[in-house]
Amino acid sequence: MMFTSIESLILRVKERESFMVSMKSAVVTGPGPLTVERVELNGPEAGEVLVKITACGVCHSDLHHINRIRRAGVAPEPLILGHEAAGVVQEVGSGVTTVQPGDHVIMAFHPQCGTCYFCRRAQPQICESPDFPERAVTGARPRLLLDGKTPARQGIGVGGFSEYTCMPEGGVIKIRKDAPLDTVCLIGCGVTTGVGAAINGAKVEPGSMVAVIGLGGVGLNCVQGARMAGAHRIIAIDTLTSKLELAAKFGATDFVNASEVDDVVKTVVEMTDGRLDYAFEAIGLGKTIEQAFNMIRRGGTAVVVGVTQDNVTVSGGMFLGERTLTGSLYGSTNVHYMIPRLVDMYMEGQLMLDELVSKRRPLEEINEAFADIEAGAVARSVINF
Amino acid sequence: MMFTSIESLILRVKERESFMVSMKSAVVTGPGPLTVERVELNGPEAGEVLVKITACGVCHSDLHHINRIRRAGVAPEPLILGHEAAGVVQEVGSGVTTVQPGDHVIMAFHPQCGTCYFCRRAQPQICESPDFPERAVTGARPRLLLDGKTPARQGIGVGGFSEYTCMPEGGVIKIRKDAPLDTVCLIGCGVTTGVGAAINGAKVEPGSMVAVIGLGGVGLNCVQGARMAGAHRIIAIDTLTSKLELAAKFGATDFVNASEVDDVVKTVVEMTDGRLDYAFEAIGLGKTIEQAFNMIRRGGTAVVVGVTQDNVTVSGGMFLGERTLTGSLYGSTNVHYMIPRLVDMYMEGQLMLDELVSKRRPLEEINEAFADIEAGAVARSVINF
Repeated sequence: MMFTSIESLILRVKERESFMVSMKSAVVTGPGPLTVERVELNGPEAGEVLVKITACGVCHSDLHHINRIRRAGVAPEPLILGHEAAGVVQEVGSGVTTVQPGDHVIMAFHPQCGTCYFCRRAQPQICESPDFPERAVTGARPRLLLDGKTPARQGIGVGGFSEYTCMPEGGVIKIRKDAPLDTVCLIGCGVTTGVGAAINGAKVEPGSMVAVIGLGGVGLNCVQGARMAGAHRIIAIDTLTSKLELAAKFGATDFVNASEVDDVVKTVVEMTDGRLDYAFEAIGLGKTIEQAFNMIRRGGTAVVVGVTQDNVTVSGGMFLGERTLTGSLYGSTNVHYMIPRLVDMYMEGQLMLDELVSKRRPLEEINEAFADIEAGAVARSVINF
Repeated sequence: MMFTSIESLILRVKERESFMVSMKSAVVTGPGPLTVERVELNGPEAGEVLVKITACGVCHSDLHHINRIRRAGVAPEPLILGHEAAGVVQEVGSGVTTVQPGDHVIMAFHPQCGTCYFCRRAQPQICESPDFPERAVTGARPRLLLDGKTPARQGIGVGGFSEYTCMPEGGVIKIRKDAPLDTVCLIGCGVTTGVGAAINGAKVEPGSMVAVIGLGGVGLNCVQGARMAGAHRIIAIDTLTSKLELAAKFGATDFVNASEVDDVVKTVVEMTDGRLDYAFEAIGLGKTIEQAFNMIRRGGTAVVVGVTQDNVTVSGGMFLGERTLTGSLYGSTNVHYMIPRLVDMYMEGQLMLDELVSKRRPLEEINEAFADIEAGAVARSVINF
């Protein structure tokens, strides 16, 4: 095992060949506001990597978790959310070969193991590694301990609203050192998901017509992906004018304020003369998935990017027109390849990221950051450590 | 316009530069049995082809039309069904270049015009030619007249339960002369639809695992297409043991009698260890489409081949696993290329057709042929003229 001089907070426990870190984390313990607490992190073990987090984006998926807990009235166990994180490797466990201390990295919330059935058949985005979607709370020893005694969970695989995280090697992706970590952290989730859905999932081609329903961090990146792919028309659909205006910056050419039209589907079908090639749903609602499917042309493709357990009901007759309803997860490709490439594209001015960052806040303002998302006031907030 | 010596029944009406044929047809006039009547056929006009029909398969889609009329209690107008037809070209209208009198042809019920938006973007199977799906009854002059006065309709584009038909050039496909027309007629619909769904629509690849729900003429050809594509396991699903036995001949390796298991989805998921790559629905029911979608693996594809207007309800969460629900129409390719190729494959022993023909009947036994389909007693009956 390698060893570097790091903060005194990290104690080497020689007999276990591992480290214990005492750190600040924003913790969800119940339906109330998040609280910043001291949490003990144990790691890294074999095949794991300890990362000091520099910045972490605040994503709608985190809010979904919080809202589920609010509705349930209780958290199943203390939960540390945040999964759009970037940082610097501090320590690596035995057997780790792809990163070393000092490397700048972006965390992949869905680590791709490289050895399961799906990774091996070139569909690593649906990797069935047991590390996904939530790191174990009940392993040989708990990964995270609140107040030194209560096991806590790394929400959505990363637990990025913390000063440190411990990830399996497959979820730690080395990037170039000249990229600003507090901006490229967004590539860890929303950017890869949205851009990848357009360029890898749907494979949008030059000249095509595309609609995107929902213009949060993911939807704006579907717009951006469609723009990169050379789409001729990109129709942005949302209920907030501010988001439609933001979509224009990312490449949208046409705009539908869904709160101002009677029938979104009819509006888009008329705008495109029934020739819409692709529709992306980036909210996660049954109703908007149905809209996406119903607005595409015969032979067109609707891509579900939003996360939902809602039922989706469509007419079987639509399939006679060879319409396709599919989903895209985490950019529909290998993130070990995709994330460094997106970082390069940002550094070379092809990928817009700065425009996504509406606000930067310290960890202590995590509740305000979630309130902003809930109000639709921001594309992305970033927590800077 | 060309002219050949044909039966005295065909009268040249010189001033109109067209022909009138008096012929026997099986006609649907209401909810009762079909009756064989004398019908007058006018044609061909410019761009059209007059074909003497040799044989026509009896397809479930014809029965769907009849059952709709039975439920409604009345036919919208006299209807001549039959769309799996083959025959010999008698006359061609002006401008026709791809066939000439004497050519052996298979009719394409969905003529591919070659010039519409979809034909030109290499998706001719969803051609939006106005000739699809039903030939006009109210053009400059009616195409078909029952008793010399009542306009009648060419059901499903062909009107093949007749001694003659008049089709647009795009729906008349020249084939080799040594192929038996009373067998290769099946390629006009069910064979192309089923085989094409597997090899062009889903693009089943060698080694994959496939399930087919519904083993009628189309479903058996999905099985056959999967076999040709080198599928490793082909799971045949139906409620009739006789159809499962027939599927074995066409290449199925595993069998599920849906009337004998509690949960078809669970059964298939267990049989395949959750690794089913493709499921084909070849019935046309919302419930079985949902089953097809729910039995595929993450990243898998369910293909709707059956025709239905039923609602289809699935969980939005399934799209997070990148599952795809799509449709395949008429073999998902250009039938002008596909149909002659399938005829070649039959002649060379690669495509099974003889095994599909359960019975051969004269036109006068058309009602018995439909009764056989309704009872599930046959894969295909063929009406021989």
